[in-house]
Amino acid sequence: MLSRVKAPTARTQVHRLPERGVYDRETIDAILDEALICHVAFVDGGGAPRCLPTIHARVGDTLYVHGSTAARAWKALRGGAEVCLVATIVDGLVLARSAFHHSMNYRSVVVYGTAREVTDPEELHQVARAIASHVAPGREDEVRMPTDAEYRQTLMLALPLDEASAKVRTGPPKDEHEDLELPIWAGVLPLVTQPAPAIPAPDLMHGLDVPPSVEGYHRPGRE
Amino acid sequence: MLSRVKAPTARTQVHRLPERGVYDRETIDAILDEALICHVAFVDGGGAPRCLPTIHARVGDTLYVHGSTAARAWKALRGGAEVCLVATIVDGLVLARSAFHHSMNYRSVVVYGTAREVTDPEELHQVARAIASHVAPGREDEVRMPTDAEYRQTLMLALPLDEASAKVRTGPPKDEHEDLELPIWAGVLPLVTQPAPAIPAPDLMHGLDVPPSVEGYHRPGRE
Repeated sequence: MLSRVKAPTARTQVHRLPERGVYDRETIDAILDEALICHVAFVDGGGAPRCLPTIHARVGDTLYVHGSTAARAWKALRGGAEVCLVATIVDGLVLARSAFHHSMNYRSVVVYGTAREVTDPEELHQVARAIASHVAPGREDEVRMPTDAEYRQTLMLALPLDEASAKVRTGPPKDEHEDLELPIWAGVLPLVTQPAPAIPAPDLMHGLDVPPSVEGYHRPGRE
Repeated sequence: MLSRVKAPTARTQVHRLPERGVYDRETIDAILDEALICHVAFVDGGGAPRCLPTIHARVGDTLYVHGSTAARAWKALRGGAEVCLVATIVDGLVLARSAFHHSMNYRSVVVYGTAREVTDPEELHQVARAIASHVAPGREDEVRMPTDAEYRQTLMLALPLDEASAKVRTGPPKDEHEDLELPIWAGVLPLVTQPAPAIPAPDLMHGLDVPPSVEGYHRPGRE
């Protein structure tokens, strides 16, 4: 059985405000599963930084991202590119008395690793289901799964969760002691992302009910 | 007067699904102003990709990000590092009949450039106000502004909006014609981020009302 708690590496060790660093896989997995999207950074052929927002999905100890095989940016990730993937959830604004101590309550995960292109048909199918489920849990049982031609147009990349860490800030603002006497309101403004009423496609077949994945939509770990 | 519409460069030109590419500054500015956070990608001293989530603020044609001068990751950005900054707003899930045509409605901006460290006291002050205002419009008039010592602990970086582009997807799913007959619900599930009731700091002075920046909180461009 794999250890679920790994020692941080030089890169994943949180140096700045180390009390915010979290390295247990339960925390890391929960953030990755709740975060709808992530940002994937890599170095392009000319040595310059690139960054793409994208959907991800976790299957056990592996994180998957996907793009189009026709997309230039994604092609650069084929063949074992090193990536830095970040998933960030903003939970609220931390409004201190001083501008300096303003902050955010947030949960973020950073994963470093080398992307492996997924080519095995069974793994491709499992990942396609995981991505549909990540977007809207239950959706994987409602939709038409990809054809072979569609898989050929999809670049799926796997990233092991070997080198990952989380950073979490919670709680009220921390002002300087002498600022506590200032007549300035301080506190936290929580931010919540929620679904608005679903908009059926204009060409939707008559008589179809809104399915469970949409009717009961919420991110994993949220009600 | 500066041109507000710049031709895309090789990097900012949207090649994949070019109909989603937007290059006018009004669109770019609106996305940057509404997005609460961004992700900053750069290449570290060892040639590996790094990516940090952070707050940004726009002042005219310049985008600012800031971190602690004590943070190792931010130090790497001093001295003219090339960065790729991405701000992404997710507007909804695009739920197609096929897994393949699932997508997101989103608005994202990518900015390429070389970070300049801000050292001029007036510019520092202007940026500190802009950041407070970006977090919660109006907050810049409510808080205690930074002291010289606090400015010395803050690394402020400026990025010109010279090489920037937006990508926008809106509207319903686009399924294959033959999938329209499948009895699968399709449509858009809009996602909205809203404030929950504010939580006053436990050490808040008695008798302070919730201020305008918190009471009427909304992102610019949103009601």
